[in-house]
Amino acid sequence: MSHLEKLDAYFAKNRERHLEELFEFLRIPSISSLSEHKEDIKTAANWLADRLRKLNIENVSVDETAGHPVVYGEWLHAEGKPTILLYGHYDVQPVDPLHLWDSEPFNPEIRDNKLYARGASDDKGQVFMHLKMIEALFETEGTLPVNVKFIYEGEEEIGSPNLPEYVEKNKEKLSANLILISDTGLYAPGKPAVCYGLRGLTGIQIDIRGAKGDLHSGLYGGGVQNAIHALADILASFRDEHGTIQVEGFYDKVRPLTEEERKAYSELNFDEEALKEEVGVNELFGEQGYSYLERTWARPTLEVNGVFGGFSGEGIKTVLPAEAGAKITCRLVPDQDPNEIVALLKAHIEKHKPKGVNVTISEFDKGAPYLTPFDHPLIQAAGRSYERIYNVPTAFTRGGGSIPIVASFDEILSLPVVLMGFGLNSENFHAPNEHFHLENFDKGLRVLGDYLHEVADLEF
Amino acid sequence: MSHLEKLDAYFAKNRERHLEELFEFLRIPSISSLSEHKEDIKTAANWLADRLRKLNIENVSVDETAGHPVVYGEWLHAEGKPTILLYGHYDVQPVDPLHLWDSEPFNPEIRDNKLYARGASDDKGQVFMHLKMIEALFETEGTLPVNVKFIYEGEEEIGSPNLPEYVEKNKEKLSANLILISDTGLYAPGKPAVCYGLRGLTGIQIDIRGAKGDLHSGLYGGGVQNAIHALADILASFRDEHGTIQVEGFYDKVRPLTEEERKAYSELNFDEEALKEEVGVNELFGEQGYSYLERTWARPTLEVNGVFGGFSGEGIKTVLPAEAGAKITCRLVPDQDPNEIVALLKAHIEKHKPKGVNVTISEFDKGAPYLTPFDHPLIQAAGRSYERIYNVPTAFTRGGGSIPIVASFDEILSLPVVLMGFGLNSENFHAPNEHFHLENFDKGLRVLGDYLHEVADLEF
Repeated sequence: MSHLEKLDAYFAKNRERHLEELFEFLRIPSISSLSEHKEDIKTAANWLADRLRKLNIENVSVDETAGHPVVYGEWLHAEGKPTILLYGHYDVQPVDPLHLWDSEPFNPEIRDNKLYARGASDDKGQVFMHLKMIEALFETEGTLPVNVKFIYEGEEEIGSPNLPEYVEKNKEKLSANLILISDTGLYAPGKPAVCYGLRGLTGIQIDIRGAKGDLHSGLYGGGVQNAIHALADILASFRDEHGTIQVEGFYDKVRPLTEEERKAYSELNFDEEALKEEVGVNELFGEQGYSYLERTWARPTLEVNGVFGGFSGEGIKTVLPAEAGAKITCRLVPDQDPNEIVALLKAHIEKHKPKGVNVTISEFDKGAPYLTPFDHPLIQAAGRSYERIYNVPTAFTRGGGSIPIVASFDEILSLPVVLMGFGLNSENFHAPNEHFHLENFDKGLRVLGDYLHEVADLEF
Repeated sequence: MSHLEKLDAYFAKNRERHLEELFEFLRIPSISSLSEHKEDIKTAANWLADRLRKLNIENVSVDETAGHPVVYGEWLHAEGKPTILLYGHYDVQPVDPLHLWDSEPFNPEIRDNKLYARGASDDKGQVFMHLKMIEALFETEGTLPVNVKFIYEGEEEIGSPNLPEYVEKNKEKLSANLILISDTGLYAPGKPAVCYGLRGLTGIQIDIRGAKGDLHSGLYGGGVQNAIHALADILASFRDEHGTIQVEGFYDKVRPLTEEERKAYSELNFDEEALKEEVGVNELFGEQGYSYLERTWARPTLEVNGVFGGFSGEGIKTVLPAEAGAKITCRLVPDQDPNEIVALLKAHIEKHKPKGVNVTISEFDKGAPYLTPFDHPLIQAAGRSYERIYNVPTAFTRGGGSIPIVASFDEILSLPVVLMGFGLNSENFHAPNEHFHLENFDKGLRVLGDYLHEVADLEF
């Protein structure tokens, strides 16, 4: 029997029990953002630690942080083989509005082969899959094809405020050859995806100050600069009519898409019409010469997130505003550096500063972009494992958003990150009636088990 | 004795009594915006009507409107002579914050030859001057050199909502050769001014709509138009770097300043340094080739009064905003038409409409600009009367703001409007400690009396 046949048989035989255990995990209301659930968070951490110990995982610990605990464990007996660091989070989003749930969020229920519960997909269900994949390998082969380390956090849904420090402090302990995360989704139902890149983030606030206070637009209008006009001039200078960013040097370090990547994206046949319908626009918009997927996955952005100044109540107030401001964030792609980009933005604003006003710039938190090269053996291997189970070509995707902790792992541990997720966008993460398609639970277990074998034999 | 010597003697002799009467008028708390003062408003209207009757003014009436009453009266026995319509308002602004007043707002007090009370300068004091000027002419000459009509409203401080309808309905009754209004100020202490023009007003609100709702800037950024960027592009397109308006046709109907006007403004030696200090800017701003006074008095403007869109709270929210908007008003000068200007703005926006968004435009109330030509005999005569009493050259000014009722008089009655005011900008109209320099009360009475004689002999 091949290792896959063995896994198949094992998962089929133990499915009922596995789901019962997952129900147990899902029943713990480990909402990280609500202090009344602090004990539940601990219960969930201890539940995970117990499970790890039952799997013969060694050096299991529930490590205190300034916030919720981190669960660690390791098994390092696959001599000469790579080490995989498995990351996941055991905390979940709040559940309100409760009345929109068709069943209790912490009383899991299967309907139509979908498992309904808060955390079913994001991320307890997928964390649980890692555990069961390890269990199955041990039970069917008596060992693991690679070394593994586990790190589970309880603060992902509140922005992982303490994990970077923990990772920094435990750099040695966490050293590995790759990090495997299952917290993303398939490209579409039946179509698996390896996400090999995420955009970074940087942002500034621009505050414009003209006169000491708002002026009467009749008495002073035409004689004194208007803070909103000054702001609008700056904002308009950032992009051309197609949205191409005009900040000098902004694109200099952008790693161009490879021909292989462009071809792969194009073959996804992304449905732009469906997207227009979804967001409610008549036309899409953006940098010329790039498809929608290329623009949102592999090109940087500059977006005004908010603007304010003067009178915004009902009707009219003939004021010449003294103050105006805007919040701006850029999504960054490799190899853009968030600090360098802020410096370029500042230089641009200095150059385009309108007369008659003062401009103040403040900086927001930054996150680096992340990319494991498309043709990296670990990425391609993940694609093969998916394909073997799903029987369709794997989509190689990037995420337009940022998962700060991914960039932190990349930066602090300098490891390739492999994002192999099994959720679907339709599964209501963060919303009422979160659910997880059990078809992808079943297939995903096999994909993950197969991937550990793939990695064991890989040169990288 | 010349008529001026006679007036001098009369005002000197009756000063005490006049001030006592003015105190009586000022004691009535005729605040038009507060419904608890509705009866006080009526009291003030009746007080004025009584005074008119005592002066042998005929057909005196207190006319009800949908709001506060209009007081009317007339004396038409100067056969073959012009008729002057005298306008003023007997309502006042609210008094809060009361604790900032050094004496009770409705208990007039003279300190350092300044009369402190709400309405002392704006406009009861100046309305009262018209009455006493008429009294003095009757008492010293037994008649008036011209025909007069009086119209007093009680809603000026709330935007004169009912006066245009009243004027329209009473067009015949109000017909005259000019309207004289004393509700403006001197150019500077000791330096009188005839205001011969006011800017008009028109405005629009621009609402931009992109996607159905705000989008995640990571998932969609770079692929869908951002409503704030679209708005900024439109706003930036309105003016060039010097504030010159780029809306096609915007300046086409602007009546150019005459050489005489430019010379007159220049001779005022306006102190731009003092203005910068006052408003707190390092540099003034605006259309090149025009002085500050020219820009604010005789050139039209386009000012964004307010802007809104996206997230404006503390910190950062990485949203791609679906909606944004701005409020815009234009100050207009003769011969710009408010409706035409709105049409030009709409055409401009249509032409500069960014891709990927819908733009909705709504219109605000409009007011026409007003101008009695600088060299009009009535304007020049007003200058002579001022000069005769103040012994310095009169400033011929325009107002950058709009007094909607002036434009209404101009439009409905097609009469030249002469604005001869005696206030000073430092007199805290609308603020605590409103006061009136009695020096200008004394001089103003003489100026007004003299002006009626000037008008009597004028060809116009």
